Amino acid sequence: MEQSKVRSARDEANSPTSKLVQFGADKPLKLGSGSLLSPFQIAYQTEGELNADRSNAILICHALTGDQHVANVHPVTGKSGWWEMLVGPGRPIDTNRFFVICSNVIGGCMGSSGPATIDPATGKAYGLNFPVITIGDMVKAQAMLVDHLGIDQLFAVVGGSMGGMQVLEWAHSFSDRVRLAIPIATGARHTAQNIAFNEVGRQAVMADPDWCGGDYIEQGRHPAKGLAVARMGAHITYLSEAALHRKFGRNLQDRNEITFGFDADFQIESYLRHQGFTFVDRFDANSYLYLTRAMDYFDLAAEHNGRLADAFRGTKTRFCLVSFTSDWLFPTEESRMIVHALNAAGASVSFVEIESDKGHDAFLLDEPEMHAAVHGFVNAAARQMGIGE
Amino acid sequence: MEQSKVRSARDEANSPTSKLVQFGADKPLKLGSGSLLSPFQIAYQTEGELNADRSNAILICHALTGDQHVANVHPVTGKSGWWEMLVGPGRPIDTNRFFVICSNVIGGCMGSSGPATIDPATGKAYGLNFPVITIGDMVKAQAMLVDHLGIDQLFAVVGGSMGGMQVLEWAHSFSDRVRLAIPIATGARHTAQNIAFNEVGRQAVMADPDWCGGDYIEQGRHPAKGLAVARMGAHITYLSEAALHRKFGRNLQDRNEITFGFDADFQIESYLRHQGFTFVDRFDANSYLYLTRAMDYFDLAAEHNGRLADAFRGTKTRFCLVSFTSDWLFPTEESRMIVHALNAAGASVSFVEIESDKGHDAFLLDEPEMHAAVHGFVNAAARQMGIGE
Repeated sequence: MEQSKVRSARDEANSPTSKLVQFGADKPLKLGSGSLLSPFQIAYQTEGELNADRSNAILICHALTGDQHVANVHPVTGKSGWWEMLVGPGRPIDTNRFFVICSNVIGGCMGSSGPATIDPATGKAYGLNFPVITIGDMVKAQAMLVDHLGIDQLFAVVGGSMGGMQVLEWAHSFSDRVRLAIPIATGARHTAQNIAFNEVGRQAVMADPDWCGGDYIEQGRHPAKGLAVARMGAHITYLSEAALHRKFGRNLQDRNEITFGFDADFQIESYLRHQGFTFVDRFDANSYLYLTRAMDYFDLAAEHNGRLADAFRGTKTRFCLVSFTSDWLFPTEESRMIVHALNAAGASVSFVEIESDKGHDAFLLDEPEMHAAVHGFVNAAARQMGIGE
Repeated sequence: MEQSKVRSARDEANSPTSKLVQFGADKPLKLGSGSLLSPFQIAYQTEGELNADRSNAILICHALTGDQHVANVHPVTGKSGWWEMLVGPGRPIDTNRFFVICSNVIGGCMGSSGPATIDPATGKAYGLNFPVITIGDMVKAQAMLVDHLGIDQLFAVVGGSMGGMQVLEWAHSFSDRVRLAIPIATGARHTAQNIAFNEVGRQAVMADPDWCGGDYIEQGRHPAKGLAVARMGAHITYLSEAALHRKFGRNLQDRNEITFGFDADFQIESYLRHQGFTFVDRFDANSYLYLTRAMDYFDLAAEHNGRLADAFRGTKTRFCLVSFTSDWLFPTEESRMIVHALNAAGASVSFVEIESDKGHDAFLLDEPEMHAAVHGFVNAAARQMGIGE
């Protein structure tokens, strides 16, 4: 994509180039907090064609800093889709065969209603007046989109990290509407350490005076420095010590000597700075607060007196879980806990732990074993149902 | 200690209540960067008595946010010594038997020359005009203090984390002056992941507009928010997932329900905020930059073409290394690498990996196995040398 075609994040947040569905006063979103969000809109992309009996729809759920541009060029960054290795024509999730839907989560900043959205009641950006949302709210909104598309049952719901939380929530709240659930590199709750890292990120954003108590859009400012720090810290947790050692080690920048100063001497430093600075051009700082908060609040077992198995009793959904050995944000143990609960609930479960040194980010990368696992699982069920190749 | 007796960090930085040695123009500190630091001063504490043949001195080296108040009440916080479980009368390092020295590192902020020190040449705080220093520079300055105290050879040098780096540097640079070296929870180099975490902390400080390009003291400001964020992030790396889970889990604050907001709902959040906010009252933001930088630069093998064993060839120092199973900042692997190098160099080495779920911070906590290991090692050698009990 040429640079000239790239749109600003602000444009995209309020008048997205994606498909859009708007829910008016008659269809409010009833939030976990008890408040109503109304009106609201969902921006989404689709790939492939819905078949005649509407049985080939796959919903992809995105992670914290992802969006609906799973398999198409991103309108703001100009980069290709974030999961195009998994989703596309001839890919493990083959868009020649399946109708793929991916929507920006509620609270996000790529066109679905979120804190950067103009509140029609005031004509100003919501900022912190946007209600705090949960993973359950994101999924409820997605269910309304799926209704809107005239689809009763999804063939599969697939996602990693925060996307995986949504997959679990779908299987929990809308069990009858999900044939296959594929939660990848995720957990049924956010751990204390994960909450801790999120809190540091939020404090970094809120410490930035340009955050203006959340009102930066109306005040024409941008808490870029705070958001960049938040992103840098989080980014470390997406990688692994082994991957950092392999990619960067203690390598210095091209001048190849230390400067005895505070510039980026080490390659890992300039890499992280780059991650921070590019992120702030495409992401809304308040969305970062809202989405990390939704992750913190997620705890499927808590709604069932701590018994995770009770979240899935009687389910007919078939599960395939994937974890990665070097993922320390959502370690295998978190997936195993879900597998045990699903077993206890009598559900059909496959589970694969993939050997990788790439850390949590592995789910977004070229991991042939993951692609093979997803493809095999999806393919076998599709064949059974007679969904044509 | 009563609150009224507590002094301000700024007072303590420039006119410490500790003992002080000043080195004038005739005794500059030749820095690793090539510059000279002159004049400079070292603030230090001692416990116990130096014996007649000056053979019972133990130097304790402090970690990043520690200082010389290893076994005495802290003049700023009013808290007891940071290693008083290890050092004191009747303790594993028994001050009835040993003469214990602990000095604030060069670059620190508790009385030794650092960026918060008033530069006598200008009458203003150094700020970023203070030269960037290395672990080697800290140790050179300590050696000048040890000279000043009339001690040729230290019975032992002991420290954890950044303190352990200094122990290794002592054994490397002043091998003949160190009988026993006890590096705890440390490494012979900072890893890419550790550099990454330090860099995020530095960026958090420097993103704070109250940092003023390092000139905040002269401008009467204080980058408290940025430094608090840095501390919060670093603090997570000092603990372990298991310890966080055991201490906090997903426990909520006393109202025991989530607020659907951005206040501290979870106990881990308020704990981290407390860690951040109390830290900024006792620590200088520029010192944080300088000391993290010194850690990043540390790489003993690099001076020997990557052969760590060559850093210790011919050494007569006896080593005892300690690591903790749940320490992911300086994992056991880093200690084992040092042990292998020492073995290859033909040195005398003991090594103990201690089972603990407390993470990196274990070295500061009540870890009887660590205390027993240090006591046993020190005691056996003292008995051999006829240092009285």
